[in-house]
Amino acid sequence: MPTTKREQITKHFGTWYRKVLIDAGVADYRYPIKGCGVWMPYGFAIRKHGLQILRDLHDATGHQEAQFPLLVPETSLEKEAAHVKSFEEECFWITHGGLKPLDVKLALRPTSETVITPMLKLWIRSHKDLPLKLYQIVNVFRYETKTTRPLIRVREISTFKEAHTSHATFEDSEVQIKEATGIYKAFFDALDVPYVISRRPEWDKFAGALYSDGFDTVLPDGRTLQIGTVHNLGQNFAKAFDVTYEAEGGKREHIWQTCYGISERWLAAVLGVHGDDNGAILPPNIAPIQAIIIPIFHKEKNETITEACAKLAEKLEKEAHMRVKADLRDELTPGSKFFDWELKGVPIRIEIGPRDMEQNAVMVVRRDNFEKASVKQEALADYLHEVMKKMSKDMREKASKWLREHVHSAKTLDEVKTLLKKRAGIVEVPWCGETDCGLKMEQEINGKMLGVPMDMKEEVSGTCIVCGKEAKDIVRVAVAY
Amino acid sequence: MPTTKREQITKHFGTWYRKVLIDAGVADYRYPIKGCGVWMPYGFAIRKHGLQILRDLHDATGHQEAQFPLLVPETSLEKEAAHVKSFEEECFWITHGGLKPLDVKLALRPTSETVITPMLKLWIRSHKDLPLKLYQIVNVFRYETKTTRPLIRVREISTFKEAHTSHATFEDSEVQIKEATGIYKAFFDALDVPYVISRRPEWDKFAGALYSDGFDTVLPDGRTLQIGTVHNLGQNFAKAFDVTYEAEGGKREHIWQTCYGISERWLAAVLGVHGDDNGAILPPNIAPIQAIIIPIFHKEKNETITEACAKLAEKLEKEAHMRVKADLRDELTPGSKFFDWELKGVPIRIEIGPRDMEQNAVMVVRRDNFEKASVKQEALADYLHEVMKKMSKDMREKASKWLREHVHSAKTLDEVKTLLKKRAGIVEVPWCGETDCGLKMEQEINGKMLGVPMDMKEEVSGTCIVCGKEAKDIVRVAVAY
Repeated sequence: MPTTKREQITKHFGTWYRKVLIDAGVADYRYPIKGCGVWMPYGFAIRKHGLQILRDLHDATGHQEAQFPLLVPETSLEKEAAHVKSFEEECFWITHGGLKPLDVKLALRPTSETVITPMLKLWIRSHKDLPLKLYQIVNVFRYETKTTRPLIRVREISTFKEAHTSHATFEDSEVQIKEATGIYKAFFDALDVPYVISRRPEWDKFAGALYSDGFDTVLPDGRTLQIGTVHNLGQNFAKAFDVTYEAEGGKREHIWQTCYGISERWLAAVLGVHGDDNGAILPPNIAPIQAIIIPIFHKEKNETITEACAKLAEKLEKEAHMRVKADLRDELTPGSKFFDWELKGVPIRIEIGPRDMEQNAVMVVRRDNFEKASVKQEALADYLHEVMKKMSKDMREKASKWLREHVHSAKTLDEVKTLLKKRAGIVEVPWCGETDCGLKMEQEINGKMLGVPMDMKEEVSGTCIVCGKEAKDIVRVAVAY
Repeated sequence: MPTTKREQITKHFGTWYRKVLIDAGVADYRYPIKGCGVWMPYGFAIRKHGLQILRDLHDATGHQEAQFPLLVPETSLEKEAAHVKSFEEECFWITHGGLKPLDVKLALRPTSETVITPMLKLWIRSHKDLPLKLYQIVNVFRYETKTTRPLIRVREISTFKEAHTSHATFEDSEVQIKEATGIYKAFFDALDVPYVISRRPEWDKFAGALYSDGFDTVLPDGRTLQIGTVHNLGQNFAKAFDVTYEAEGGKREHIWQTCYGISERWLAAVLGVHGDDNGAILPPNIAPIQAIIIPIFHKEKNETITEACAKLAEKLEKEAHMRVKADLRDELTPGSKFFDWELKGVPIRIEIGPRDMEQNAVMVVRRDNFEKASVKQEALADYLHEVMKKMSKDMREKASKWLREHVHSAKTLDEVKTLLKKRAGIVEVPWCGETDCGLKMEQEINGKMLGVPMDMKEEVSGTCIVCGKEAKDIVRVAVAY
């Protein structure tokens, strides 16, 4: 990677991406409202398996799933000053119920701090109620005026996992930030999607937070995609909504909050990072069909082979606990079946032809590298589990290598400009730490500051690429989605 | 049933219901917008198990889960004339994106026919694409002006399972109606909730449908609750959105559609139908905790017992595949733990005290009738599965008996009025079949016509209770939520 063909795709990533989404039956954004799309059945199934991993990670760490209302009264949204300032121009506003104007305008939640915090006020009484770690998976809305892109920049973010936690002390909230970061790492590792973690600059942090950390990956077109964010909210919302608890001595204190979110962009990353000329390549963890079984015969249908395929599918489902399907459609050739399932990114193809039948074997083909192996039926279940593990590891390594190759460092503005112009990925540069310089940098490079690396310690040396003063930080910059 | 206490509850069902919802941690509607509520973690878990049954029933019959957008352009909603007329005064309307007015107003979906049908137009080409059976579980919205009630009459219907199917012929759609009815029967049977099925009168059918069948149950206060509806849409939406398919001869035909929906009212029914003075009683099928294990000791903590409880919970989870929890909280007495878990409706309580330990036994207590039994540990797993089955059966029978006792018949308007005034449940009466008479009947009895029984054949005899003409149908009437 990249092949020549791949390079063409990189150039035309947007076209490839939209085509794969619809043709593979993942998502269809040809809805009459811009930035609103449909999860088609196959896409919905991928989504389900991905969300199950996310749910398991949250449940295993004491998070409880809940569900809060969609609508936010303007009077609630207004309570945290920085928050409303950031969001009011991005909200969809309901002004009418039926034919009558409403007394108080209602926003569609752009995120749920102002929805959840008033309820915490009812629920939290004493330190015994803390920590309280809640999450929900819901739709949230932003009135995007920029160009929208399926699953990436949308008006209905149809799949937002947002966690909201409450703590007794700042220290506890800091521990929570570490846990949240760990959960997100584990999630993207399970998807074989590599990432960098950076602390966002002041001007780009979540409105109402003390600080925000972002997970970013690089898509084939060299632009970064923010795929997860973790925020320490301090006591800002707690004070705005006056949420207090009785501390051990009996004194009332405001709670400390964190929140962290992941949207359906995780799937955009999976498709973008792993896909190839033939379509999607799904990590076995989230593939709705992990192995597709295809009978091979020419012209005349072979009932014995067909039956063997159906039986094998059943056997693997039951005994190997895999998600398996036999494609027994009469009207299609093996070739067009291959095409279909490659497009959909099914990790493993199993072919059974007359010779395989004779040898009591099957042909196993990996979707990621098309490696073939003839495997005896009795050894198949173990072999498939091994192959899935291996495939996931190889996909992760390949993608990580690609990401590493797309992280550069530069010492001057011109170098950065040249790199970003050719969409080379992420560039690490020295910065003096001043907001003025940072904003000027973003303007000059026509890109975004992702922030200070949180996933590695970098020696700070050199001078700010904008003002030439001594550097205080190394920061990542990129052309971001 | 009903006990004297129960009768008081019946009178004050609303108070009991709201209190149980919050105190058991199911749902909290003290949100700053009327008719919008929160699924609390325990309630969310019940919801999850209930929805899993519903999903399994749909998946097993070839339905595919998908997810469609929330927002509907006014221009789409307007396309089916009867539909828009029914819904425009019930919609929440978005008029602004950020600070700017929108060109086309957007409704929050009140239901999704006008959302889904335009996509079908893109996806359905030929008879080979049919039948197409889709469903989604989403939130829908109605601007209720009447008094709202948690999970029953709300503005954000937070959990709407709506299925939408497309067929080549009217006959196929009729077969689908039967399948849908079967799915809903199986679902309510799994919840031990009894129901009657009635074909809604013309003036109460779903806007845009050929006909609508409703599932109703009776709550403890004697009012009926519609808990599911099944509609044959004919070709009304297909024609409005011009959705056609190529029939076998090559001719283009409009598709035939059905739709059917169940909201979170299923849980309102479960709580109302089964609950008692001590709180909720959950059918084992959907209980997030099927058995709660409580150590019994006075004053001094007994480590051996505590450990035995923890071990047993683990063992039952692993070996009996049950959802089990040990309540090892130090600060609470056994009595207050009983109170907590009874309120939450946990089907089975397992007590382990010093004497039980000696005998290698545990005490098993059923939530529905408080029957106790001492059971040897080695026989426990089998016993618990038996008890859960028995309990479910008993709950279903008790509730069915109660429902049957609350279905009456009457021959005169006065009889009906008397029965409904004392909230006696459902009354079956002869009706001439004329709309004028039907509407007049509803006005006179201050109730609703549920419609003609679809779950039994009734001999039609007698004369219409309004006009005195020969009866054409027996119809059910009631005071409905």
